[in-house]
Amino acid sequence: MAYAVGLDYGTNSVRCLIVDTSNGRELGTYVYEYETGEAGILLDAADHNVARQNPADYLKGVEVTVAGAIAEARRSDPKFDPKNIIGIGVDTTGSTPLPVDKSGTPLAMLDAFKDNLNAHAWLWKDHTGYAEAAEITELAGKEHPEYLAKCGGTYSSEWFFSKILHCLRVAPDVFDAAYTWVEHADWLPAVLTGTDAPEKIRRCRCAAGHKAMFCDEWGGYPDEAFLAKLDPKLGRLRRTLGDKTYAVDQVAGKLTDAWASKLGLTAGIPVAMGAFDAHLGGVGSGIKAGVLVKIIGTSTCDMVVAPSSANLPDIPGICGIVDGSILPGFYGLEAGQSAVGDIFNWFVNSIQPGGKEAGSHQSLTEKAARLKPGQSGLLALDWNNGNRTILVDQRLTGLLLGQTLHTRPEEIYRALVEATAFGALTIINRFEEYGVEISEVVNCGGISEKNAMLMQIYADVTGREMKISRSAQTCALGSAIAAAVVGGAYPGFAEAQAAMCGIKETTFKPIPANHEVYRRLYGLYRQLHDGFGLKGQPLAMGNVMKELLEIKEKANT
Amino acid sequence: MAYAVGLDYGTNSVRCLIVDTSNGRELGTYVYEYETGEAGILLDAADHNVARQNPADYLKGVEVTVAGAIAEARRSDPKFDPKNIIGIGVDTTGSTPLPVDKSGTPLAMLDAFKDNLNAHAWLWKDHTGYAEAAEITELAGKEHPEYLAKCGGTYSSEWFFSKILHCLRVAPDVFDAAYTWVEHADWLPAVLTGTDAPEKIRRCRCAAGHKAMFCDEWGGYPDEAFLAKLDPKLGRLRRTLGDKTYAVDQVAGKLTDAWASKLGLTAGIPVAMGAFDAHLGGVGSGIKAGVLVKIIGTSTCDMVVAPSSANLPDIPGICGIVDGSILPGFYGLEAGQSAVGDIFNWFVNSIQPGGKEAGSHQSLTEKAARLKPGQSGLLALDWNNGNRTILVDQRLTGLLLGQTLHTRPEEIYRALVEATAFGALTIINRFEEYGVEISEVVNCGGISEKNAMLMQIYADVTGREMKISRSAQTCALGSAIAAAVVGGAYPGFAEAQAAMCGIKETTFKPIPANHEVYRRLYGLYRQLHDGFGLKGQPLAMGNVMKELLEIKEKANT
Repeated sequence: MAYAVGLDYGTNSVRCLIVDTSNGRELGTYVYEYETGEAGILLDAADHNVARQNPADYLKGVEVTVAGAIAEARRSDPKFDPKNIIGIGVDTTGSTPLPVDKSGTPLAMLDAFKDNLNAHAWLWKDHTGYAEAAEITELAGKEHPEYLAKCGGTYSSEWFFSKILHCLRVAPDVFDAAYTWVEHADWLPAVLTGTDAPEKIRRCRCAAGHKAMFCDEWGGYPDEAFLAKLDPKLGRLRRTLGDKTYAVDQVAGKLTDAWASKLGLTAGIPVAMGAFDAHLGGVGSGIKAGVLVKIIGTSTCDMVVAPSSANLPDIPGICGIVDGSILPGFYGLEAGQSAVGDIFNWFVNSIQPGGKEAGSHQSLTEKAARLKPGQSGLLALDWNNGNRTILVDQRLTGLLLGQTLHTRPEEIYRALVEATAFGALTIINRFEEYGVEISEVVNCGGISEKNAMLMQIYADVTGREMKISRSAQTCALGSAIAAAVVGGAYPGFAEAQAAMCGIKETTFKPIPANHEVYRRLYGLYRQLHDGFGLKGQPLAMGNVMKELLEIKEKANT
Repeated sequence: MAYAVGLDYGTNSVRCLIVDTSNGRELGTYVYEYETGEAGILLDAADHNVARQNPADYLKGVEVTVAGAIAEARRSDPKFDPKNIIGIGVDTTGSTPLPVDKSGTPLAMLDAFKDNLNAHAWLWKDHTGYAEAAEITELAGKEHPEYLAKCGGTYSSEWFFSKILHCLRVAPDVFDAAYTWVEHADWLPAVLTGTDAPEKIRRCRCAAGHKAMFCDEWGGYPDEAFLAKLDPKLGRLRRTLGDKTYAVDQVAGKLTDAWASKLGLTAGIPVAMGAFDAHLGGVGSGIKAGVLVKIIGTSTCDMVVAPSSANLPDIPGICGIVDGSILPGFYGLEAGQSAVGDIFNWFVNSIQPGGKEAGSHQSLTEKAARLKPGQSGLLALDWNNGNRTILVDQRLTGLLLGQTLHTRPEEIYRALVEATAFGALTIINRFEEYGVEISEVVNCGGISEKNAMLMQIYADVTGREMKISRSAQTCALGSAIAAAVVGGAYPGFAEAQAAMCGIKETTFKPIPANHEVYRRLYGLYRQLHDGFGLKGQPLAMGNVMKELLEIKEKANT
């Protein structure tokens, strides 16, 4: 018997999952909610862009969750023995960089900086560096357009250098005290493997490639001269980053004696390179060439891979195209919708149509499910939180069109669900327009498991069967798969995934009549999408409402 | 002492008002709710376009309300004597035609037809004739474009010939049994004055001009050959309509002995020509050259007048330009918004944001009043019930744009109010673009009296002072003014209005800083308005959301 441990660091908590490497059976799992801040996030009442985390929570999370998962595994299978755990995998949010000193210690864990928000981990959704992001985008656009071509044309405020440059500007004391900055995904494996000299920390391909403009084509991270133009100190920081990054089939190192005894595991077992939660979620959902994995939650992450041997073009609007980022030997391509569940939550929690009871997700879904496609006459854009793919524009907002004096809340709810489906189709189309064929769609994440109406609408809108990943914790499962691979249970990811991943029995097949209506609605969605989303495109909009009415009337006959 | 009686027939009830002709003092008023149907309207569950009324309710309404108003006048002023009532004025909804037989009796009051909906009065909001309206528009566009030029370019399903032609098609037995069709506004004075031969009924200029394409330029009603092309029987009906119409300073006749004794009034006093409720509302609000009167309720009616001597061009999108329709000696110009209060009612009653209590008009208005212009980042189109002016298009629908994950119900409520203000400004601009200057705006109707926030927004958006008519029942007051004029108390309307109309003390003046923000928002509204409302206009929309965000941020600093 060989088991693998997957550690999955989310936005508010960390989960440990223990998996049987032979078949993916989940023996034990345990969740630790971060203790610091609000739901684990340090906020600043004066600036809603701030979102930081305490690295001490990350450390405590390892101990608590591994112990909890082992205890559950023991209960669920008396034959389980933690000595048979052959490796550890780690996924985290990102870009979530933290400043560390020369000894690799996070500044936030030093007395001098423990109350300084800027010395903590800068969580993925920290947007304080928005001005710096624009500055980086502008400079790269002029001097190194190739940097941007791999990340959708715009460098984001959520990413590595935007955050570090912002810290340099607003908290030079913190910046100066840091020897370097390390992604959460790199720091945690370094800790477990005793890599205390920061120059020795192995940096993962996934964070570097998707969030820090790393690419072998131009020798790794952006060149020093480029970063120095943003600020000479940023240029000097470049020297601490090294020139090499590692895919998730590589080891970060071996578990130290101290951590092994703390966790009740065997010292020396390999710890895999870290990776982003979504990417290992893709792995846990069985991603391979031709398979799109959609993680559907408050927002989505949409991932596909293409063989590294493929002559892949840059794809406009795709946030990242990185060789080896999701699966070794493949380009990892990442897209996403800035808000999906968040839009439904906004409608239910902020607008509260009909009050709390009548306006619950369940009640609205039940009523919305009875409507036929096109019947409401409504059309929405899914942009309440901007558009990540394919427009890469955070300054887009929502739109609802087609209201009459008789429009009902459940009609709006359904229109919002449909809008996210249209957004999903736009991503699929963009991949295929650039030669990345998608033959299968696997969904995971809470919404895909809970909302059958949404899944059916996604099938009807895209004209594709919607499958759902078997595991309810695909990210942790993906980490465990990485652990299984580095632990030697399989020669590579394909074999490990074949054994350890699965699909739920129930799938959602497109209903041809619904698909026909949605094909027409999607044409209108694209008209709005392009009319409001593209710059400088003269487009007539006058037919939109009329066509919606025709579709509505047709649906009602 | 001289008093005048105004009878005001609304959609659900009729009101009688007794006024002191010397100063407009209102001595007594009484309302009678129609008894037949739902809130006075006969509906057809199978066809939501049907809206009919029972003319018997109109007759009972005279008796009940005149008696009630006299009783109240006696209580409020012991010196009041109904013998001093010098005339009667009548206003009604329209176009509300009813079929009558050779003796002038409505078919609905005959045993053979009393259960036949098609034999009743076809209420203004009956839309069953929509196909016939399109047919009339098409034929007139080809053969007599001048017919359409006076009524906004489109003949409506709410109007006279659409309804009659529809009846001819679906209920030929009713059509054949009718000698002619008479507007409610013409039938009621005819009854009171004993005009029982239908060919002698005087038809008012206002209904004929605004709803039946009557114009002296082409010899009155549309010519027989034109109507015969729609249907030979409609051509023959033309012969029963006569060639002459009468403004509201003319008499329909004298009160018969029978009605005088039934009502307790003096036999032989003059009954003024009837007119539409909105038009006499304009009169009651003091309409004159340069004054825009807005009646703001579930929808609006916006009226201006221009001297008949003016060389007035056709004005695209203005529903009616009729010499003598509102005031004798002036062109009456009628515009309107298809929904105003109805949009707010939809949001409160159908969407119910936050439930019934939190989502009341009062609660939302209180919270919305605290917002600054532009602060919500929202922009709406006021088209939930189509657009009457200036687009004349019932097949336009609502739009809300700018939603984020933080948008609140009161922000949407305010955006809806603002949208109606932008719609109001679009009407004002259209008048002025064609040389009809507007130097003063007088509002009346429930919303203008009740919602100070709305009035302030209207002032801020239009950059004009908003005044409110003193009387709470301006339509009935307008009818009473007509009665005063035909009764001989004044030589003409100007003198009667000067004595009998007034403005409330509280007015709403534009706040310059707010007006500046709204000038910018209006630019965006027009971009949406033209982009979605005009046909075949290629317009870029890409800047709309961005500019809204800039305005929002500016408002928040």
